[in-house]
Amino acid sequence: MTYCVGLMLRGGLVFMSDTRTNSGVDNISTFRKMFNWEVPGERSITLMTAGNLATTQAVVSLLDERVKEPGNRAPCILETDSMFQTARMVGGLLKEVIATHAETGQRADATFNATMILGGQIGDGDPRLFLIYPEGNFVEASFDTPFFQIGETKYGRPILVRAYDAEMSFADAVKLLTVSFDSTIKANLSVSLPLDVHVYHNGSLRNGPIFRINTDDPYFQEISSGWGVALREAFHCLPEFTFPPEG
Amino acid sequence: MTYCVGLMLRGGLVFMSDTRTNSGVDNISTFRKMFNWEVPGERSITLMTAGNLATTQAVVSLLDERVKEPGNRAPCILETDSMFQTARMVGGLLKEVIATHAETGQRADATFNATMILGGQIGDGDPRLFLIYPEGNFVEASFDTPFFQIGETKYGRPILVRAYDAEMSFADAVKLLTVSFDSTIKANLSVSLPLDVHVYHNGSLRNGPIFRINTDDPYFQEISSGWGVALREAFHCLPEFTFPPEG
Repeated sequence: MTYCVGLMLRGGLVFMSDTRTNSGVDNISTFRKMFNWEVPGERSITLMTAGNLATTQAVVSLLDERVKEPGNRAPCILETDSMFQTARMVGGLLKEVIATHAETGQRADATFNATMILGGQIGDGDPRLFLIYPEGNFVEASFDTPFFQIGETKYGRPILVRAYDAEMSFADAVKLLTVSFDSTIKANLSVSLPLDVHVYHNGSLRNGPIFRINTDDPYFQEISSGWGVALREAFHCLPEFTFPPEG
Repeated sequence: MTYCVGLMLRGGLVFMSDTRTNSGVDNISTFRKMFNWEVPGERSITLMTAGNLATTQAVVSLLDERVKEPGNRAPCILETDSMFQTARMVGGLLKEVIATHAETGQRADATFNATMILGGQIGDGDPRLFLIYPEGNFVEASFDTPFFQIGETKYGRPILVRAYDAEMSFADAVKLLTVSFDSTIKANLSVSLPLDVHVYHNGSLRNGPIFRINTDDPYFQEISSGWGVALREAFHCLPEFTFPPEG
């Protein structure tokens, strides 16, 4: 499994992804699921992937190969005209890769599925955030639905819904995602540290801070233990339940 | 979908279930999913059900019919010797009902699936809590794993894991379950009020308070809005994130 979140703030886009992949509980590995491209002053693009690892790696490799072969007829991710065109291209590649493998066996299509979050900004376009489906189509985030989650999305959702604020600072957004990831990691063995983070500042047209939160990260430890305490305190502050009179 | 939780405390067992059933998003109804039997001074038994409504209703009807036909060869739920025997009987019925309907079509077995939580106390036996699978087998809760959830379990799990305490009062347990149900209801349209509650006091050998929390219940409203505020406050009390220096 996997857990990735892309968050839209007034000030920019914040991405966080875990790195655990598993094929059964006895075959666990660490793979990067966040990929960044930039042309400083012109574009910054981030892609996060969930689902079949062979599929997602094939899509990312195809994107990278095209970058190394300029002049190719197909547009590369450093040349697309807009984020919308980028989403179309990535969606098209994803659908193609799944179709290629699905041909080989009956009902294999579901097995090769993958879902992606794509975000960034190109030229004078707005910063945009997309959720790309295995069918190659996609939906875009707005401030009505300001974040996308892929993978194991349920455990970490309540705190996102409750504490997200479009005006929050980047530091608060990283804190929020850390709490959301901690809740997920505590509940599901197939999601795990290290976590990859990218914070894109709107209008900068270059990658913002990209860093990794490792297993021994003191901030993560502090949030993880502090959140348990804070939750219990919050719980105790809620009004007491009184049983209805017996009738 | 459905959400039911059975919780084991030092002092007793607490059960909560929602009442929404749906067959697609455009066919939503309210059905009771919690069923109670008692022989005061001798036994109290609670059953909660998730999954195919036709299956779970058939199981409950069979249990009730046997109660009305004493002297039948099959033991009835008011006559079993122990909670373990009760779990075996309910598991057997569940498996039988699923098998009957599954015969009629290919791969229909999954469609008719259901899962159940059974808890209570009989005579001088200990109070016990079981999770019964569609295959008819079951596992029992202990203070290592002191609660079972069925249905839409993920959204409401983090707070249970964080705030559960075996020594907590019955009122605190109802508060905890209310928070867990509120998180689930906020996230999933297929789980909804009213909620049914039963609080069994260990050793009483009779049903404890059984009541319903309705949509307009002021306590539920208070918890629902209060928990959002409390969560945001807890979140703000956590230490700030500071970005690593750019390298």
